[in-house]
Amino acid sequence: MSSYADRLQALREQLKRDRLDGFVVPLTDEHMSEYVGEYAQRLGWLTGFQGSAGTAVVLPQEAAIFTDGRYTLQVRQQVSADSWDYVPVPAVSVADWLGEHAPDGGRIGYDPWLHTRAWVEEARKALAEKGAELVAVAANPIDAVWAEQPAPSDAQLTVQDDATAGKSSAAKRAEIADWLADRKADAVILSALDSIAWAFNVRGDDVSHTPVALAYAIVHSDGTAEFFAAPGKLTDAVRQHLGNAVRVRDRADFAAALASLGDKRVAADPERAVAAIFDSLDAGGARILALRDPVVLAKAIKNSAEISGHRAAQARDGVALVRFLKWFEEEAPQGALTELSAAARLQQFREATGVLKDLSFDTISATGANAAIPHYKVTEESSLPIEPGQLYLVDSGGQYADGTTDVTRVVPVGEPSAEMKDRFTRVLQGHIALATALFPDGTTGAQLDSFARRPLWEIGCDYAHGTGHGVGAYLSVHEGPQRIAQPYYPGGQSLEPLRAGMFLSNEPGYYKAGEYGIRIENLVLVAARDIPGAEQPMLGFETLTLAPIERRLIEPSLMSQGERAWLDAYHQRVLDIVGAQLEGEELRWLEGKCAPIA
Amino acid sequence: MSSYADRLQALREQLKRDRLDGFVVPLTDEHMSEYVGEYAQRLGWLTGFQGSAGTAVVLPQEAAIFTDGRYTLQVRQQVSADSWDYVPVPAVSVADWLGEHAPDGGRIGYDPWLHTRAWVEEARKALAEKGAELVAVAANPIDAVWAEQPAPSDAQLTVQDDATAGKSSAAKRAEIADWLADRKADAVILSALDSIAWAFNVRGDDVSHTPVALAYAIVHSDGTAEFFAAPGKLTDAVRQHLGNAVRVRDRADFAAALASLGDKRVAADPERAVAAIFDSLDAGGARILALRDPVVLAKAIKNSAEISGHRAAQARDGVALVRFLKWFEEEAPQGALTELSAAARLQQFREATGVLKDLSFDTISATGANAAIPHYKVTEESSLPIEPGQLYLVDSGGQYADGTTDVTRVVPVGEPSAEMKDRFTRVLQGHIALATALFPDGTTGAQLDSFARRPLWEIGCDYAHGTGHGVGAYLSVHEGPQRIAQPYYPGGQSLEPLRAGMFLSNEPGYYKAGEYGIRIENLVLVAARDIPGAEQPMLGFETLTLAPIERRLIEPSLMSQGERAWLDAYHQRVLDIVGAQLEGEELRWLEGKCAPIA
Repeated sequence: MSSYADRLQALREQLKRDRLDGFVVPLTDEHMSEYVGEYAQRLGWLTGFQGSAGTAVVLPQEAAIFTDGRYTLQVRQQVSADSWDYVPVPAVSVADWLGEHAPDGGRIGYDPWLHTRAWVEEARKALAEKGAELVAVAANPIDAVWAEQPAPSDAQLTVQDDATAGKSSAAKRAEIADWLADRKADAVILSALDSIAWAFNVRGDDVSHTPVALAYAIVHSDGTAEFFAAPGKLTDAVRQHLGNAVRVRDRADFAAALASLGDKRVAADPERAVAAIFDSLDAGGARILALRDPVVLAKAIKNSAEISGHRAAQARDGVALVRFLKWFEEEAPQGALTELSAAARLQQFREATGVLKDLSFDTISATGANAAIPHYKVTEESSLPIEPGQLYLVDSGGQYADGTTDVTRVVPVGEPSAEMKDRFTRVLQGHIALATALFPDGTTGAQLDSFARRPLWEIGCDYAHGTGHGVGAYLSVHEGPQRIAQPYYPGGQSLEPLRAGMFLSNEPGYYKAGEYGIRIENLVLVAARDIPGAEQPMLGFETLTLAPIERRLIEPSLMSQGERAWLDAYHQRVLDIVGAQLEGEELRWLEGKCAPIA
Repeated sequence: MSSYADRLQALREQLKRDRLDGFVVPLTDEHMSEYVGEYAQRLGWLTGFQGSAGTAVVLPQEAAIFTDGRYTLQVRQQVSADSWDYVPVPAVSVADWLGEHAPDGGRIGYDPWLHTRAWVEEARKALAEKGAELVAVAANPIDAVWAEQPAPSDAQLTVQDDATAGKSSAAKRAEIADWLADRKADAVILSALDSIAWAFNVRGDDVSHTPVALAYAIVHSDGTAEFFAAPGKLTDAVRQHLGNAVRVRDRADFAAALASLGDKRVAADPERAVAAIFDSLDAGGARILALRDPVVLAKAIKNSAEISGHRAAQARDGVALVRFLKWFEEEAPQGALTELSAAARLQQFREATGVLKDLSFDTISATGANAAIPHYKVTEESSLPIEPGQLYLVDSGGQYADGTTDVTRVVPVGEPSAEMKDRFTRVLQGHIALATALFPDGTTGAQLDSFARRPLWEIGCDYAHGTGHGVGAYLSVHEGPQRIAQPYYPGGQSLEPLRAGMFLSNEPGYYKAGEYGIRIENLVLVAARDIPGAEQPMLGFETLTLAPIERRLIEPSLMSQGERAWLDAYHQRVLDIVGAQLEGEELRWLEGKCAPIA
């Protein structure tokens, strides 16, 4: 395996051959995915960065990696300062940096299948001030020098049955057709992998932990569709499921199919479809309607089958997590656990459910200082022994056919310090403030985010990440368009109105660099609230995740009566639903964990 | 005086003569002012609307008036439904409406001195879809048919002395010159009236209640400036104050002066300078830097002289308000007061300070159902008698040379209902939640707004306005760029980071249409907060306004211990500062109003 310095050198030589003075390496794929298949892990291959969001820019003499506040520490641990400058986004954008650092009159390359048109225009403008040029490459230069680059996955698709999906693909396509009719449009391009999986009631195995398949689709105004995927990936069962109204085509024909739409009125999503898609539509003369993918909101507002499926998944996942927490409490003090061994044991408990499809993301199993890295990923090299006096943080989830889970708990090994208890209690107060919020229909996540921060703000602390992300139904564990975060948080979407039926996480935290990390994460459902005398439709959250919140870390005297009542009621519900599936010693352990707090 | 129907008819005939199929009538002036001189009250003249924000569009067969949530009730009371459609913004923009309603291929006029370029581009695009055209008029067609239109004010300017301003105009212009140097720019256009007043340490009397003068300025990179005003407005004292580095020119020469800047690099503010300014710069070949007016932030962050001046103004204004509240409490039950007579008496108390320059806005003196109109303006026709069982709301302020005040109090006449007390207490809880918030430096008003709403949200209620606006120093009572409001609240600015030294109002409310209105408004100062152990610079609010909050409307059992402690401490401070200026019966009355709440 070549060193990262060698890889950077190889890329620079390739750029010379391609007559480029620079190249931009985002972390995404041809579908603007957040999580990508191995073949598209170009940023990680080039730099060593293992986070889920970032961009690199390579120039002849300089190289920079751009990450947001979540990865401030991590990027410095994983990416060599000898070769790379660390640049914080959004304080500095890639375009701004290019405008300052690109050589006068230089040619900077980008892969049009890996960027939005908005990004291309912004970067082009910034470079124009230096007389520099942004150049679309026909082939990604990293692919030319990445000798061991894996091929895109050839995994076969599976059918998500209508009962679990809650609506047939034909019905979903009929709704898309109505949406097209309202806009006098002839067709819509679907390129987001989870939109395609949801619209066609299929799942795949092409991206680690996210059950999507590499595919594109065009849905026409009569409800028929074209579905583009590598031919070997579609079994007869899937073809039969797709039916006659869906024409299966080779993924390699997609760009040509776009160009052949001619002068039709075609909707495409400027945030989710890459520049190359728009370029291909333009080449054919399409009249483009730049509109949000109509699946995005339909998918975010879960139907009753998806909601009841999710409840079943949570009840099941809660049992696995409770068994793990009990096991951990007994084993950890003996001093033989590591972050890796703990994560492995948690996975076993989930696998013991017998229906686990996959983890929903790489488990964050982090003790002591490692937990202060909010999106830490445990590896053989990083894994620490779990020792007394530490806080252990585990952020994990499962993919089940009926639901996607995501939960974070923190537990002490031995006696926690007073400061740890103070900070944990404040994080819990923020979590409760959000869990109990009532708000008018149409309120955005940006308007709720500060509720979760206020108890930390009171002592001059905060956390450098958003408070909640959307979650899919046996799909992406990070799903838009809604989010709970500061306005303009990187990744955006916190200005989307929340609507009944959406899933979100509720996950405030606190991170003391070099010492410990805290995060309390439950998934919640946005639900209509019937308040007597209310003057407008109101919403609130129903907490979906079922696992005890560690009482040894709580300082009850800091909490209000209302906060303690919320916690007691939550624990009672955990006991009712998860406890019903346990017996003997396990049930007694859970009863102790769920007893009233004060 | 012609009827509003006649005026609309006259305008339509004028449009025919001007070969226009429509015209857009905003409520602003050539400086994009919120409050405008009488000559610029074209929207009010045409429609009867007396609110502070709105736009009208007149087409041959249709006419529409666009207002935001603050004016939903008011516009229906003041503007005839026979002639006008009511359109809510931001749900529908003027541009969108034009795109739907303008006649195919029509010519829609606009006055380029009354719109931003962004508005012009948006409207032009929307009209283009209908093949319609947006046409800049050389003369405003309303001026042609408004027979009694007043001339622009010829009031003379006055000098704001350096001690009160806290910084000389030369020093302020030197900072602007530094700002220009940083941007390699040759000059900046100042067109916002309060920016000009602040930068040159002058005040005027051209806009009711806002001490600004109709002027433009160009500040050059050497700190010299050109100051454009009608010649008769500048006394020798003002000319001497402006000094040799400021060249006084006729306001009528401004457009020509812009064109004569040639190919210089000129900064102009796309939000604050009208389209005609950019057009004139373009005509001369200037290289335009679209940047925010550099005075905006400098003016918003008050210096120590402005802050101590404001404290003195509040101590003085508090005495006037306390005397009024005592008088009102004694007089109102006798049944002889009206909204107008109460407002007049309050003005007398402020005038009795001997240093009142003006009210800072038209007093909102509103009883019963009138108070449910958040921006109600009392007139001879609307003024109601003040009767037992009502809540009386008074929102008022004074302009003093050392500060601009703005305060709202609500008092009951007779016994308030349990519902009134519940709502008032919740509004107070929201007010306190904001007043006591601590937050990281860089936090925006959008992140704090919900703190003030939560107690109302809990019972399904809310208020349809922002929570706080910036305030000037003997300048505009509504001053940007900061604001506390939902993200994307009409008027924007809630995404501006708050900084130590800014003034804001804190004014949650509750409005029950047809019954009563509640608002509790204090001005606050953003101040650095030194929190032991804080991990980052933190800010908080110091409440500046000094007047008792009506205890007869408070239900103490709803409040937490912390909320009651805040109220008691606030009242103690009111007593310390305002009480020190009172004696005898007045002091004893205030002592009773400021006693601990429970």
